[in-house]
Amino acid sequence: MNNKNPLYYAEYLQLDKILGAQKPESEKSGTAAHDETLFIIIHQTYELWFKQILHEIDSMLELFQQDYIPENALHTVVLRLKRVTEIQKVLNDQIRIIETMTPLDFLDFRDSLQPASGFQSLQFRQVEVKLGLKYKYRNEMEKKFFNIRLSKEDQKLLAKVDNEPSVFEMVEKWLERMPFDKIDGGKYWKEFKNIVASTLDHDRKVIENNPFLPPEQKKMELNNLNATLHSFEVLFDDKEYQKVLDSGERRLSRRATLSAIFILLNRDEPILSLPFEIIQALLDIDELFTIWRYRHAMMAQRLLGSKIGTGGSSGHEYLRKTTESSRIFTDFFNLASFLIPRKQLPVLSNEVKTQLGFSFQK
Amino acid sequence: MNNKNPLYYAEYLQLDKILGAQKPESEKSGTAAHDETLFIIIHQTYELWFKQILHEIDSMLELFQQDYIPENALHTVVLRLKRVTEIQKVLNDQIRIIETMTPLDFLDFRDSLQPASGFQSLQFRQVEVKLGLKYKYRNEMEKKFFNIRLSKEDQKLLAKVDNEPSVFEMVEKWLERMPFDKIDGGKYWKEFKNIVASTLDHDRKVIENNPFLPPEQKKMELNNLNATLHSFEVLFDDKEYQKVLDSGERRLSRRATLSAIFILLNRDEPILSLPFEIIQALLDIDELFTIWRYRHAMMAQRLLGSKIGTGGSSGHEYLRKTTESSRIFTDFFNLASFLIPRKQLPVLSNEVKTQLGFSFQK
Amino acid sequence: MNNKNPLYYAEYLQLDKILGAQKPESEKSGTAAHDETLFIIIHQTYELWFKQILHEIDSMLELFQQDYIPENALHTVVLRLKRVTEIQKVLNDQIRIIETMTPLDFLDFRDSLQPASGFQSLQFRQVEVKLGLKYKYRNEMEKKFFNIRLSKEDQKLLAKVDNEPSVFEMVEKWLERMPFDKIDGGKYWKEFKNIVASTLDHDRKVIENNPFLPPEQKKMELNNLNATLHSFEVLFDDKEYQKVLDSGERRLSRRATLSAIFILLNRDEPILSLPFEIIQALLDIDELFTIWRYRHAMMAQRLLGSKIGTGGSSGHEYLRKTTESSRIFTDFFNLASFLIPRKQLPVLSNEVKTQLGFSFQK
Amino acid sequence: MNNKNPLYYAEYLQLDKILGAQKPESEKSGTAAHDETLFIIIHQTYELWFKQILHEIDSMLELFQQDYIPENALHTVVLRLKRVTEIQKVLNDQIRIIETMTPLDFLDFRDSLQPASGFQSLQFRQVEVKLGLKYKYRNEMEKKFFNIRLSKEDQKLLAKVDNEPSVFEMVEKWLERMPFDKIDGGKYWKEFKNIVASTLDHDRKVIENNPFLPPEQKKMELNNLNATLHSFEVLFDDKEYQKVLDSGERRLSRRATLSAIFILLNRDEPILSLPFEIIQALLDIDELFTIWRYRHAMMAQRLLGSKIGTGGSSGHEYLRKTTESSRIFTDFFNLASFLIPRKQLPVLSNEVKTQLGFSFQK
Repeated sequence: MNNKNPLYYAEYLQLDKILGAQKPESEKSGTAAHDETLFIIIHQTYELWFKQILHEIDSMLELFQQDYIPENALHTVVLRLKRVTEIQKVLNDQIRIIETMTPLDFLDFRDSLQPASGFQSLQFRQVEVKLGLKYKYRNEMEKKFFNIRLSKEDQKLLAKVDNEPSVFEMVEKWLERMPFDKIDGGKYWKEFKNIVASTLDHDRKVIENNPFLPPEQKKMELNNLNATLHSFEVLFDDKEYQKVLDSGERRLSRRATLSAIFILLNRDEPILSLPFEIIQALLDIDELFTIWRYRHAMMAQRLLGSKIGTGGSSGHEYLRKTTESSRIFTDFFNLASFLIPRKQLPVLSNEVKTQLGFSFQK
Repeated sequence: MNNKNPLYYAEYLQLDKILGAQKPESEKSGTAAHDETLFIIIHQTYELWFKQILHEIDSMLELFQQDYIPENALHTVVLRLKRVTEIQKVLNDQIRIIETMTPLDFLDFRDSLQPASGFQSLQFRQVEVKLGLKYKYRNEMEKKFFNIRLSKEDQKLLAKVDNEPSVFEMVEKWLERMPFDKIDGGKYWKEFKNIVASTLDHDRKVIENNPFLPPEQKKMELNNLNATLHSFEVLFDDKEYQKVLDSGERRLSRRATLSAIFILLNRDEPILSLPFEIIQALLDIDELFTIWRYRHAMMAQRLLGSKIGTGGSSGHEYLRKTTESSRIFTDFFNLASFLIPRKQLPVLSNEVKTQLGFSFQK
Repeated sequence: MNNKNPLYYAEYLQLDKILGAQKPESEKSGTAAHDETLFIIIHQTYELWFKQILHEIDSMLELFQQDYIPENALHTVVLRLKRVTEIQKVLNDQIRIIETMTPLDFLDFRDSLQPASGFQSLQFRQVEVKLGLKYKYRNEMEKKFFNIRLSKEDQKLLAKVDNEPSVFEMVEKWLERMPFDKIDGGKYWKEFKNIVASTLDHDRKVIENNPFLPPEQKKMELNNLNATLHSFEVLFDDKEYQKVLDSGERRLSRRATLSAIFILLNRDEPILSLPFEIIQALLDIDELFTIWRYRHAMMAQRLLGSKIGTGGSSGHEYLRKTTESSRIFTDFFNLASFLIPRKQLPVLSNEVKTQLGFSFQK
Repeated sequence: MNNKNPLYYAEYLQLDKILGAQKPESEKSGTAAHDETLFIIIHQTYELWFKQILHEIDSMLELFQQDYIPENALHTVVLRLKRVTEIQKVLNDQIRIIETMTPLDFLDFRDSLQPASGFQSLQFRQVEVKLGLKYKYRNEMEKKFFNIRLSKEDQKLLAKVDNEPSVFEMVEKWLERMPFDKIDGGKYWKEFKNIVASTLDHDRKVIENNPFLPPEQKKMELNNLNATLHSFEVLFDDKEYQKVLDSGERRLSRRATLSAIFILLNRDEPILSLPFEIIQALLDIDELFTIWRYRHAMMAQRLLGSKIGTGGSSGHEYLRKTTESSRIFTDFFNLASFLIPRKQLPVLSNEVKTQLGFSFQK
């Protein structure tokens, strides 16, 4: 700081670049449309935030790439994932700003934008892929369009990123490394299985004896219950689990799933509080991006009706259809199916309790 | 105020009732689950807000039930609809509060709630019906479950409300009463038709000449365009329009649709600014309830996974499936398809301009 | 669109500039501090939004600079002011993002930023000045620091803007041009004065007879009431009003104030609904910037405690002290003091009612 | 669940009470004012949320009342404090709903409410007192009014709560029990003191050599720096610290302050991550209530101008003046003043590192 020129706010932030990068296309064919500035600026803020999100994801990937994640690194990961969710909340709320632009205002410059499209956002694609939405997981429609609007260079970059380990994969490996599948010498899971079996049995009776349920719904719910029972049995059966993975119904490995369940059930044990927070943050991130996609779809419908989007696609329907198919951490949402009431939980032995606690108190 | 007892805050708000109405069911089988209080209180705040929303909707229905809505009543309607949207934003944001309850916390009392369910909220049902989501518009699944969980009394009340005019119907009639379908002796719409025809023709060429589009997408988009063209031609053809109404594809009458388009296109004419704001507010209300349903579905998935809901239903899937089918003002969203750029708009004659202005300036 | 190269998203948004403008200072003295990227990016998004706010304010100033504002321009003004408030909500909510940076994280690069400071944001200064916070209205402390951190060039620009008419001044002139101070041949305000006098008389009795008030508070409130009464009498007395203006207690002219009161009282008359919305939007803008300043002050305290700010100033205290002194539309807030219950309002003659309505219905 | 009547939603939530508790006062003198329902309902939702906040605070107080807080209880505390902050965000956002009520709408029923006032909210008073805003800490104006509007019974209850340990006091004791003031046999703090001394020395030079600072500001900032230096020296001097406590400048004890600083500086050590989150949550709670008070004050100004409040008080000024004086965790905000850059931090010995880690990894 000492022997340089005094730092000036505008220079530090490179405001000449930032504030000199708004050139309405509509200007070229006469007068600029008033609202095109908003259209440009809101997209630029989105891109800036995507850059920040990538910054956080990359730092997390780097930490998780190590064979052993130092215990004092997890807190940093939690804080950064939570920052991502705070950014996402703003991304979602910003949609209200773009919705102050009416379809009529948009029509003033819509034509001049073709065939540019938000689908060309390289950064957002990277966010998706790095979180775990790899090409193979996209729906058929997306696969078809994925590369079509991208420059060769951008396609190459995304292909490279697609080959790198994602947050989903890294977290999966981290969970697999945990020794919780053999905790307490196997006693824990044995008890757990018994309890779940009797819980589902109870649920079955609730359904069967519910006088309010019409036969058809009853049938549906019993099928549902059987599916739950099956997916639970599968949890302790390597071969059956592999089938579920192969079918695409689930993505998270058996061992990782067991660890995640153990964490959710015993989150108050000191060693599990940060892992619990990481799982919560991943749920939040998934949820917030899903809401973002859905609101994005509604906003497109409001601006365009059934008209073609800025890149020549029928945006609204496309966006809505990818909302659910783009989810990444669904298996973590569905962990809720495997939990059992605290009062029925297998009791951890004192030895295990000590293992999961701090060294300080001993 | 003068000769009564001094009003006390707690009495005015009847806090003895309000704050004495939280009785955890879990208490009955031993100790109360800590989080059940939250579960009760958040539902109670939802119900209080539903009451307020009904209060606003009812006041609007009353105004619109008149044959002639006084010109100075519209502003009040706008302010009240906007209040509804502000309440909805809070309803949506409140979901973050319930999401601080984890599946494990919920399991502590979930069983004791059966078969009670949010589907039994009489007020929310009324909000839906009064806005326009009548029984006939619900999807098959909903029709099946609609009454099943409700008491006879509640079913009767809802049937009654179902027979009363809704906001959708009232707004439709109000739009139909406007003389805009014959504005300027028919000249306006004639010109409009010509412009739309040539605009769609232009769009068709954009698609056909877009080198980035693969044949399959091109075909899809051209189909889409033809559909738009058709729905536009239908706009000026009573018989064809009737078919669209009969098919359920659209609900809003031809005359009302023309008025709404005219309002969106000429919103800056003084007489149209409040009608424009009313249409905007209806879009907002529809959008915010749709987001609410969608977030509600995600929250259910997070709490329950694929487990059965509090009323014995598999809540998450059910909620997600009704999200889109419960929309009411979709036709207003799709008006965007019928708009044309301002610079191409038919010019209003001076006579019409004067009609749409204030008497003051003359 | 036809004979140019196809528009690409990244080029349209000039993402090379936008995403190439993040250079952490901490990098220069070794490794970049992880959180400095956030610090840069959030400031850049703020600056982008300030640019958009200036875009909206400038368009409003241009419209209001005309001698006669066309009646169909007011709706546009309302829509743009509301857009500003939607942006401000995001500016406020973004503070939660920066608060994910802890003091310890900030310390990693804080030193390298000196003496750069947010006080050097030229755009924010312009927003303030253009809204009406001219140099003469700033508090003494601000006057002292106002120019000190700015380059000569920036100082010159701000001096120029300070000499141009502000939103406050433009709105004041627009209100003064309205003929409402002589409405109904003076009858309206005469009645109004009588009603207010008796209302305040009633309030005085409420205070005097309130058995719950200790003498000291009673005295305070009676003083308060007398002040209200005086400020009201002043409203109809040019000389006395001038004194209030001279003292700095109020800024809005007598005629403009009367028009504003008339608008608030009769907002449902068609011709007044948009002026009412404009006044509401100005209140919102003032409120949202005030909240922004206040939250900004708390955030500074959280990051810095009582330490010196990034530019060498003790930021927290400074920010808090300017929060109230930077308000611009306080006189509009205080209009509430002059309103009287609807049921007591002077009745508008039919002639006036017609004048304030649309020409269409006649 | 089995042998009782099936639970019905409306009965579970006691909706007869909840939805039967809205009786507009304005009704008594003729027709009910439309907006009074909103006024009642929003206050009732506030009271419901206050009840929930008290539920969370009470559960925390109970845990902290134990001599030894089990290590697996801290996570629960963090989750509940964060729930409180999520509720507070909704409390703050709800203000936008009440602001859809204009002063004119409020005037329709304002008179009939006197002398009831929000100051009579027993629950909010309890929240304040239980967090730590005891009577002795209130400003003079508040002390005067505190009891005046409350019934004898309510006064008694608050006096009782005032005598019970608050969250502030409990957290203070918990921090004092930590052994961090003697960590590493005193070596840690000795090194720390040296570093701080040289850091402040550096800051002093920055100020002295800043060519942009006018002499007056320079003087102010140097005074500020000396104050910081002093408050730091005081940190290691029992007698001097007692003076600071006696003067009311600070409330948090010396030992608790040292522990809190140690936690902030070493938050990544596993044993400190939950204590860090607790401190963060307390900052958030303080900040969100402060914003609530400030927004509340602005809302009062908007509704009332300088008129007397619903309880006969000049609400706006009163509220604004108590905004800062009602803060509770200011000392935690000011901890930021005592932090030093990570790269300068004293290194923890391996022995201490192990103590602060988990037993598992050993």
